[in-house]
Amino acid sequence: MEKYSSLISCKDEKGLIHRITKIFSDEGVNITENLEFVDHSSATFFMRTEFTGLIDQQRALSLLQAALPGGAEIEIRKQASKRIVIYVSDEPHCLGDLLLRHSFGQLNAEIGAVLSQHGNCQRLCERFEIPFFHVPVNKLSRESHEAEMLRMTSQFSPDYLVLARYMRILSGDFVARFPNRIINIHHSFLPAFVGKNPYEQAFDRGVKVMGATAHFVNHILDDGPIITQAVVPTDHSQSPLQMAKIGQDVERLVLAQALELVFEDRVIVHGRRTIILQ
Amino acid sequence: MEKYSSLISCKDEKGLIHRITKIFSDEGVNITENLEFVDHSSATFFMRTEFTGLIDQQRALSLLQAALPGGAEIEIRKQASKRIVIYVSDEPHCLGDLLLRHSFGQLNAEIGAVLSQHGNCQRLCERFEIPFFHVPVNKLSRESHEAEMLRMTSQFSPDYLVLARYMRILSGDFVARFPNRIINIHHSFLPAFVGKNPYEQAFDRGVKVMGATAHFVNHILDDGPIITQAVVPTDHSQSPLQMAKIGQDVERLVLAQALELVFEDRVIVHGRRTIILQ
Amino acid sequence: MEKYSSLISCKDEKGLIHRITKIFSDEGVNITENLEFVDHSSATFFMRTEFTGLIDQQRALSLLQAALPGGAEIEIRKQASKRIVIYVSDEPHCLGDLLLRHSFGQLNAEIGAVLSQHGNCQRLCERFEIPFFHVPVNKLSRESHEAEMLRMTSQFSPDYLVLARYMRILSGDFVARFPNRIINIHHSFLPAFVGKNPYEQAFDRGVKVMGATAHFVNHILDDGPIITQAVVPTDHSQSPLQMAKIGQDVERLVLAQALELVFEDRVIVHGRRTIILQ
Amino acid sequence: MEKYSSLISCKDEKGLIHRITKIFSDEGVNITENLEFVDHSSATFFMRTEFTGLIDQQRALSLLQAALPGGAEIEIRKQASKRIVIYVSDEPHCLGDLLLRHSFGQLNAEIGAVLSQHGNCQRLCERFEIPFFHVPVNKLSRESHEAEMLRMTSQFSPDYLVLARYMRILSGDFVARFPNRIINIHHSFLPAFVGKNPYEQAFDRGVKVMGATAHFVNHILDDGPIITQAVVPTDHSQSPLQMAKIGQDVERLVLAQALELVFEDRVIVHGRRTIILQ
Repeated sequence: MEKYSSLISCKDEKGLIHRITKIFSDEGVNITENLEFVDHSSATFFMRTEFTGLIDQQRALSLLQAALPGGAEIEIRKQASKRIVIYVSDEPHCLGDLLLRHSFGQLNAEIGAVLSQHGNCQRLCERFEIPFFHVPVNKLSRESHEAEMLRMTSQFSPDYLVLARYMRILSGDFVARFPNRIINIHHSFLPAFVGKNPYEQAFDRGVKVMGATAHFVNHILDDGPIITQAVVPTDHSQSPLQMAKIGQDVERLVLAQALELVFEDRVIVHGRRTIILQ
Repeated sequence: MEKYSSLISCKDEKGLIHRITKIFSDEGVNITENLEFVDHSSATFFMRTEFTGLIDQQRALSLLQAALPGGAEIEIRKQASKRIVIYVSDEPHCLGDLLLRHSFGQLNAEIGAVLSQHGNCQRLCERFEIPFFHVPVNKLSRESHEAEMLRMTSQFSPDYLVLARYMRILSGDFVARFPNRIINIHHSFLPAFVGKNPYEQAFDRGVKVMGATAHFVNHILDDGPIITQAVVPTDHSQSPLQMAKIGQDVERLVLAQALELVFEDRVIVHGRRTIILQ
Repeated sequence: MEKYSSLISCKDEKGLIHRITKIFSDEGVNITENLEFVDHSSATFFMRTEFTGLIDQQRALSLLQAALPGGAEIEIRKQASKRIVIYVSDEPHCLGDLLLRHSFGQLNAEIGAVLSQHGNCQRLCERFEIPFFHVPVNKLSRESHEAEMLRMTSQFSPDYLVLARYMRILSGDFVARFPNRIINIHHSFLPAFVGKNPYEQAFDRGVKVMGATAHFVNHILDDGPIITQAVVPTDHSQSPLQMAKIGQDVERLVLAQALELVFEDRVIVHGRRTIILQ
Repeated sequence: MEKYSSLISCKDEKGLIHRITKIFSDEGVNITENLEFVDHSSATFFMRTEFTGLIDQQRALSLLQAALPGGAEIEIRKQASKRIVIYVSDEPHCLGDLLLRHSFGQLNAEIGAVLSQHGNCQRLCERFEIPFFHVPVNKLSRESHEAEMLRMTSQFSPDYLVLARYMRILSGDFVARFPNRIINIHHSFLPAFVGKNPYEQAFDRGVKVMGATAHFVNHILDDGPIITQAVVPTDHSQSPLQMAKIGQDVERLVLAQALELVFEDRVIVHGRRTIILQ
């Protein structure tokens, strides 16, 4: 039987759950999971519904549109594996973790390709029979390199781009082509330690916890809506190198958890924040 | 305006949310929070609704009863501070924490009395102007002492008994008088280290995490439905005494979190497990 | 029997442990705990030794001075309860926690006084028979108020000042009088969310973990060497107010843990970082 | 330059650190890390020293033997990659994680072979060019199957056997051949949920934290000395299947952390506990 998720966000008012569930009920589908949330700071209502059964998506959408306040955002998505392209630089731990999960059938996504400005992850991709493309920087300008990455990426029509430790900054133009569809793993608990060398920054600051953050990419560096974060204890005895080594395990887990939520259509971007209905 | 919580559990079937929210909608109340859960292992539907407004509780209950499958359990409770009695032995850290939160107006409960077989917590209760009663064991039999505790407790008609490190085992008869209304803090991550001296047991077993568990008390020792648990790391360098000292902070936090959930009517006991709608 | 801690830091070189333990051995004391650490980034050796027995401190110091590289910092302290003064504004949760631990004999410090620009913590201090002084701001300039706080503080000759949610910024001059002797609790995982309203900042940024930081105060706001940090998960469903409420439990625990480490002479400030030998 | 670790355990008495470091000092080696611990419950002294430089191991051992109390256990090991054999059943997540770390040069061990009673991990091993041997159970008795596993294992002379989710119980005879050299990952926070189906057990008990435990294997099921443990929160909403899925990430991390500690010669088994000097 087909499985669907609907994602609704609109101005909050009385009786919304009742109106929405009436429509699903009248359509005869079987709701298997239902989660609502009201963000009181912006008076916004969010609802995610999972259901099985045949549905006329167009009719359901227009019924919902009619029943909800003006400006409501409504999506009904058939549950399906996502298409992704992965960008990576030279550190393979996040990529390796994604390839492993993919090989176990646990990624909930098809990996169209892995692109990198470095060549060292090629062998790893070959192990898992995933296409790897080396896009060297050489004497390319930043713009030309990005254009080449974009050209290659477009061939795979990805639903999402995953930056699995991709150490180059994407331009605002590039990012604008994939709104809320680029997911990055940053190796600090943002907003601490934005930018380069966060483990060195963390060491210098003498923090006692360190972490990782998966977030959507927007036009400001390391500033997009946060999806998942986790931290581990650290102390004076760990050098930046040791922090980086231990941090790798947090990074790959935080990224995997973010992808799972996004690929299950559980994440709604609301301004600079994410609403996660799970 | 009056605030209410309704707690519903019944056999799962199609359209329940719609039927329930229709009734609340027709009654004209304003739903401020709504949480549902389906336990697929037992095909049971749970729903907790918070709402404000005037309601005819009797009519709402009978409408719900009519709309739901046979055997549904339905409660509508006006949100209110609970009445509690606290039992304690000679370790004051959990009691002190509860008294502190109570003095800050954060306990969501009125403390009718503190009862103890020891006298050493009297001064602490006096600091917070809470009645303390010393019920010494002396030459009393287990039965007589319990009977005396019960007699004194009954005067305060508590909604809940809180065992804030009460080191005596209550009889099945006693427990049966307060079904799912006695909350205990046990100083291990149950079901590991049931019974006496859990920190010594944990030390002997050489565990690397230790914890605390708040649970409802049933007729089997340390076996009732778990409400909250938390752990902290430990290692070879901590003696049982040091574990106990560090554990105190976990115990008091775990107990406070359990009480907050219970006193907000968020905890439903379902067999040997708790469903917590928050 | 007397108990001592020695704290040594010096340029790292071969044979230091051997030279140091030889001196303690020759003096006939009994080492009960010994911890060393080498910070390779600055080639600095740190050692903390706990011992019991009679010792001629002056002779031991001069023997150590002679045996260690030039510029070594050496301290031998008799283990003793510290004298502290607590500053608080109007939020009582950290103060209450310290008073409770003090009343249990677990603070390892004597509280000379509690000072506040607000009056609302007076009753709490009275419960625990700790002197409370209200130092209202009224029409006082920042300088005059601080001078008055300093005047009152000085009467108690504190080893440490504890800022238990003191919401006023201390001047550089003030801080310079208590180098590495003022301990503050900040309600974020620094360096994220420096300054005012960190929970609002954390909410706006949409973080998924929030935390607290205890640190020594230096002349830059929220920038001093970090002693302890901890975090708890948060998500979209928590308002800044709810974050603040949950955060209180982290704040008081993080502060208590920092004080325990400092009062046991386990914390060495090394530049902008702390070396904690435990 | 050669790197060594020495591991010493003996009856505690005065002056041990001094005596030991004198010997290393006289031998002219350079101590790079030194950690001691006294277990007061058994009055046992433990010390791990890392050093570089040329050493006459035999002479150093006899000097240490002469300097330490009778019955001292002393080992000096050249730091080197370990040889291991991995046993696995049909769940590949822990194995895959170890293969990935090995391919990154982060396992600190050479994998001689992977053995399994099932065939489904063969492809995974091939991806990483690690020899996989299928040892089917078929109509073999428990004894015959174990004998065959032993025969194949012996060809690789492993330093350690790693049970990366190997779901068969090894006999006491088998275990006795590899004292403190078999490392198992159990999917619960032991001692809770010994034996089969720990996630089902955890679900039935309604725990709010679940975890994983890496431990040395002894002759009693799930009873050997614990090396590492970690937990994650769970709640009523997770089925045993979902718990198992989430638990996989904890299992593989806990196992990897245990192996890192063991392979760096940081773990000393002391009765039923481990002393971990890191």
